[in-house]
Order: sequence, then C-alpha cells, then structure tokens
Amino acid sequence: MTDTGAAQVVGPHRYRNGEKMIQTANPVWQAAADNGLIGIRVDAESNNRLIERETGHEFANMCSCAYLGLNYHPAVIEGAMSALREAGVTWLVTSTTRIRHNLLANLEEELGDLFGACVVPGTSCSAITAGILPLVASGHVAPGGPRVMIFDRLAHFCMSYVKPICAEESLVLTCGHNDLNYIEDICRQYPSVAYVGDGAYSMGGAAALNGLLELQDKYGLFLFIDDSHSLSITGDHGEGFVRSQLTMSPLTIIVTSLGKGFGTGGGVAMVYSREIADLLVRHAGPVGWSQNMAVPLVGASLASAAIHRSPDMAELQGKLKSNIDYFDEILPTSFAGNGLPVRRITVGDTDRAVAMSAELYKRGFYSSAVFFPIVPQGEAGLRIMIRADISRDQLATFAHHVNELAGTI
Amino acid sequence: MTDTGAAQVVGPHRYRNGEKMIQTANPVWQAAADNGLIGIRVDAESNNRLIERETGHEFANMCSCAYLGLNYHPAVIEGAMSALREAGVTWLVTSTTRIRHNLLANLEEELGDLFGACVVPGTSCSAITAGILPLVASGHVAPGGPRVMIFDRLAHFCMSYVKPICAEESLVLTCGHNDLNYIEDICRQYPSVAYVGDGAYSMGGAAALNGLLELQDKYGLFLFIDDSHSLSITGDHGEGFVRSQLTMSPLTIIVTSLGKGFGTGGGVAMVYSREIADLLVRHAGPVGWSQNMAVPLVGASLASAAIHRSPDMAELQGKLKSNIDYFDEILPTSFAGNGLPVRRITVGDTDRAVAMSAELYKRGFYSSAVFFPIVPQGEAGLRIMIRADISRDQLATFAHHVNELAGTI
Repeated sequence: MTDTGAAQVVGPHRYRNGEKMIQTANPVWQAAADNGLIGIRVDAESNNRLIERETGHEFANMCSCAYLGLNYHPAVIEGAMSALREAGVTWLVTSTTRIRHNLLANLEEELGDLFGACVVPGTSCSAITAGILPLVASGHVAPGGPRVMIFDRLAHFCMSYVKPICAEESLVLTCGHNDLNYIEDICRQYPSVAYVGDGAYSMGGAAALNGLLELQDKYGLFLFIDDSHSLSITGDHGEGFVRSQLTMSPLTIIVTSLGKGFGTGGGVAMVYSREIADLLVRHAGPVGWSQNMAVPLVGASLASAAIHRSPDMAELQGKLKSNIDYFDEILPTSFAGNGLPVRRITVGDTDRAVAMSAELYKRGFYSSAVFFPIVPQGEAGLRIMIRADISRDQLATFAHHVNELAGTI
Repeated sequence: MTDTGAAQVVGPHRYRNGEKMIQTANPVWQAAADNGLIGIRVDAESNNRLIERETGHEFANMCSCAYLGLNYHPAVIEGAMSALREAGVTWLVTSTTRIRHNLLANLEEELGDLFGACVVPGTSCSAITAGILPLVASGHVAPGGPRVMIFDRLAHFCMSYVKPICAEESLVLTCGHNDLNYIEDICRQYPSVAYVGDGAYSMGGAAALNGLLELQDKYGLFLFIDDSHSLSITGDHGEGFVRSQLTMSPLTIIVTSLGKGFGTGGGVAMVYSREIADLLVRHAGPVGWSQNMAVPLVGASLASAAIHRSPDMAELQGKLKSNIDYFDEILPTSFAGNGLPVRRITVGDTDRAVAMSAELYKRGFYSSAVFFPIVPQGEAGLRIMIRADISRDQLATFAHHVNELAGTI
C-alpha cells in the first residue's frame, strides 16, 4: 500500500482485514510447508494408511473428520456407484430450485425423516451458511424485523466470513466464546437478536446449549448453529449434538456438513417448516443458484442414511466413544471427558508445535499444529481427531510418541 | 420491521437489501410456482426426456447448461464409477490444503495442461469466487495495493454477492454492462483497479474482452472473469471464450464451473502461477476450508478432460454450433449470431412470459421466464439454452410452439 493514491481505497476493515490475516497466518502456513506438512499428495487405502506420492512415506491421518470411517464404508461407495448406474447422469445441470432429480428429492425426504426436520441440501455447509445468514439478519427467516447478529468469537470461519454481508442488513456483533451474559444483555437491549456459532466446535469444545435455549425461551433469541462436527456421532440416528437436545422451532436453524462424520459430501440445513425451506431455496443465494449435491454424492448419502438407521450405527458410535475414552485415559487434555472427538494437545510455543507435528509425521502420524489466534498465545499445540476406525494400538503408539517428544522437543 | 426498536438495527443496504430483493423476486417465483414451474421432481433418461414424478408428464429441458450433453456421457459416468472403485473412498475428509488424494492432484495437473494455466479446484465456482474476490480487493493477489473493484452490473449473483466482503478491503463500484468508458475513467483516477464480470453471460451476451485487454495493457487493470457459460463449448480444448482469447497474466484470474458444459461438478480457478495458487489455497476462505471436489466428481472430470482432448470434442462443439445456427435461423433473437448457447426470447410483460412458459411446459418443453430486474421492464421473456444433444426436430418443434403461442398469449 502506498502513502498516496492507493490509500484512498482502503476499506474500513470492520469485519475482516486481509493484510492482518495474511501477516498472522502465512508464517504459520509457511513453517508447516517448510516442514513438508502441507500440500501432501497421497494414495490412501484407509484413514489409517495414506501413502505420500513423492516419497512412499506411509502414515495414519489423525486430522480426518471421518469420525466413523464412513468415507471408506463399502455400502457408501456402492451407494454412489449404484446411483450413477441407475441415473446415468452426474446431475441435471439445472437450478435445483426449478427441477431436481428424484434421487435428490428422496434424499431430502430421507434425511428429513432421519433428523426430524425439514431439510435443505446444498453443495457444502459453508455455501448454505453464506446463503442463509444474511436472510436471518434481514429478518426474513423469522418474524420480528432485522436481527442483531451476535457471532461467537470462535464461530467457524465460514460463518464469520459473511459478517460483512449480514452487516448490510443489520447490526453485527461478536461475543466472547459462549458468553451467555453478553448475549442476554443484547437480548435486553434489542427486540430481535440472533446468535451464530458452532454446536460441537471445530477446534474442540461445544456450545452452551442449555443457556442458549433458555435465552430463546425468554427473549425469542434466534439460534443459527453449525453442527458439522457432531453429525452422525451423537444422537440415536446421528442427528448430532444440537439436534438431539432440542425441539425444532421457527427460531432455530442447524446447518451441517455431510462431508465429515456422515462420510459423503455436500451439506444440509435443518429447518422448522417447508415454508422456511421454500424461502431459502428461492432467496438464500448459493442455496438456489449454486450447484447442488451431484448424483454420486446423493447416492452415497442415501447409503449412509441407511447405515444411520441400522444397528451398525450404535456400534460405530460405541467404537468411537470407546476410542475417545481410551485416548482421554492415556493422553488427558483439557477437552477430556466431553464425549466429542476433537482434541487439542497443548505444546507451548509455535516452533515447538510445528517441530512436534513434523516429527510425529515422520513417525507415521499426521496432526496439525495450531497457533495464535486460533488458540491463546503461548498455548500452541496439535489438533487431532479421534475416529471409530482407528485401533487402540495405533492410539497407544501415537500417545507414546507424543509423550516421548513432549520431553525432548 | 416495526417503527421503534427494530429500526435501530437496519443496515446501510449499500450492496444488498434483502427486503427489496424479496419484494421484487418473490412474486415472480410465486407466479412460477403457481404454474407448476418450480420444485419439479423428475426421473430423467436424457436432457431431452425428463419425467415428472407426480404426474408422469414428459418434457425436454431447455434450461440445462449441459451444453454438450456431457452430464450423460457414458465415459464420464464410468470415470466417476472407476474412481470410486479404485480409491474406495468418497474423499479424505481433511483440508485439501494439507492433504489431497492423488486423483485430485492428477486432475489439477490435467486441467492445468488442458487449459494452459495453473488450476485451483474447489466445491463450486461460487465458492472459489467468494474466496478469491476479497483477496483481489485487499491487493494480495497482485502487487499494487488494495484495488478499486468495479463489478459489471450484470455480473452473476455469485460475484455481486460478495461485494460487502470486498468493501471491507477496498472501494467497490458498479458499472454499466460492458461500460469501457467508465472503467477507463476509474483506471485514470486510481492506481490499482480490478474489473469483475462474466465472460459469456449467464443471461446471454459476452464480455467486451478486447476493450478490457486494452485497458489491462494500458493501466494494469486486473481482470476477474467468471466464464462458466463458455467452458468446453469454445476453444480447441474447450478452454472457453475468455481463455482462448488471452495469454494468462498475473493480472488475470478466470473462474469457471465444471458443472455446466464440462458436464461434471465443482469448479476451478485458472491463475498465472503456482505462487498465486498457493496463496489462494492458504488464504482464499472456502478454497481452503471448504470441502473440495469429491472422488466421484474428480473421476468424472478426468474422463471429461480426456474427451476434451479427443477428436469427439470438435464434433460435439460442431454439433452445438450447428444447433445454435439452426435455432438462430428459425427463431432469431437479439443474441442471434453470437455463437454462444444462451438465448432470450422477448415476450413483453411478465404475465405473458409466465403464461407462455407454462404452456410450453404443457407441450413438453421446460423454459424459464425472466423478468425485470434481470431484463429491462416490458422486455420479459423466456431464457433457454441450446445444447449439442438436442435434435433439429426438437428445436423446430419448440420454435413452432413459440411462434404459435406468441400470437395467442
């Protein structure tokens, strides 16, 4: 940026600042790159055996969100193939608001039934989020006029990313993580408020759901929750951390990726009524005008839904729970005991976290180093996910390496 | 919106106004819905024979952007299935910035080679656009500091949608369609400017490419072009309207859907260098943190790329051209002769356009009615797309119905 002409055009940087973001994040990415930890290309025969193209190096992926291993489930793969075989088409290449394939319509009904909600599908959870949040802000999803939007400080990037779009329609605020007092203060000041955050957080931890539901009862607080990191792994039908604990209401929208625990791809919004779904399909930006789930992902998702209804589901969830419990026992972290699969292993400073991640990778385990501003300064560490399809032996070996390295790096 | 409390939180509505958008667009959607023209669910054996679930009604889809019919190409479907069979996985469920499957890496290389550019893949063209534009605005994609962003008035929604995000970083302006004089004026006033628009426009027509390239030469104008509607159908390898007419430069990014003429799904950015691609993969929001193309779409795309290299390509492009020429002959419209497949048939007022679309649908052809503000007031009409995989007989029958109805509706 020069001191003269260009300075005239610098934006207000209220909700984002590209320069600051890159100044902060790029050295971290670069350090990871310098240690061969990004841009890895692999063949992969399971989530536990990935083979790097260039070197032949083999490793287990401790950063896969395929919490139940469904991305490799033979029935899911066969579901994708049989949909392709039957339909003979990738997709109809037409706005799904206008015309959709029966397979996609079937999936909507099936997931609606499975999750006990009206379901709106899209290319990804982040596309759905980008489409819906501005309509929550403008007051069109629920009555009461434009809503003050309170974003949780730790809400996933895909939500914070659209703050400037929401700010075209209403007042946008950011609250401390799970800061119910602040949210209640705002509910007292303004007649129409929405809270935006994760259900199970991508960096670990969970929403203060009971408190949020109390505020919804008391003040009509709208809840927009991204529960991508708990779908499939909690709830009798895998409906997730949030959906399994609340009754759907016109004041609640849950969005979730089908590309994590569910094992396939694309995303869905769970909404209260067909009326809300119709509004979103027409007016929620990318929900209407983007591509939607392609036929093979629809087929894979129908197969995954069938698994979600079968006795296998309880078994898979049980395996995951048992692995999480075992991991918490052999390598306790601050999230131990929360029943969710994301864990953060605190290391200390940034360089040590990168060095440990690099050394673990050499020893056959991919983890990702996380830093300020994702975690507080001085608390850099490793982010990993526990899966149902990893063995206790592998978890034990991983924990052993972490403990060994903790003393030496 | 009430007159009291809620009014306090209304946003500035500089770049979007949900209330106005819904007031304008919803009656149109509702009219289409009332005539059974939206929310249609079908089985489909080809782009020319879709069967409505509820009624058994059969029709040809005149609104499919599968311009070459590749969405039904047996080799494309087999490509998707064989990738699933080989890899045995939907996707790795890990940030593709960190780890990507060799199949996706192969596709990047293959498309890079095919299109003569460095290729960055993502879930959809709109996700890629949402990720990249703010970095163009903040001045991180090319040197010269924050860029004044000029959006063409007719740029696809997926670009206009992120204006508020870009406005956090720089000055955002809107110009008349292809208004080169205005763009040049802004280039004279500011040292660092970007133009954002379509290559082949989704509603018909094309960018004033020669003029834009002159301004790029003269003033260093950055060009961000969405060329989704011409990929595959123009260029020796189907590289599209824009890519086939320019040399890649650090000042040009072309984004395009693979889910239209290309026949598969997902999207790509074509950029000048690996360095720019690396920047985008790390920092361009959904390009990095969203899902990416799933394995079956990667496999389908590899197969489509192979078709793009084969002699079949010239044949398919030739068929499309011949169909477009034929259509322009039997039903001339304002876009006749432009070689692109989108056509608008002007009808007059909105009610007549909807009535004609409804009657054509009864007679076996799905078209979409388009209205103000998409087209000027009083020029409502039908939007259709010509495809390579439609017969002259069907085109003639369609034109016959249009001509007959034009006199009576």
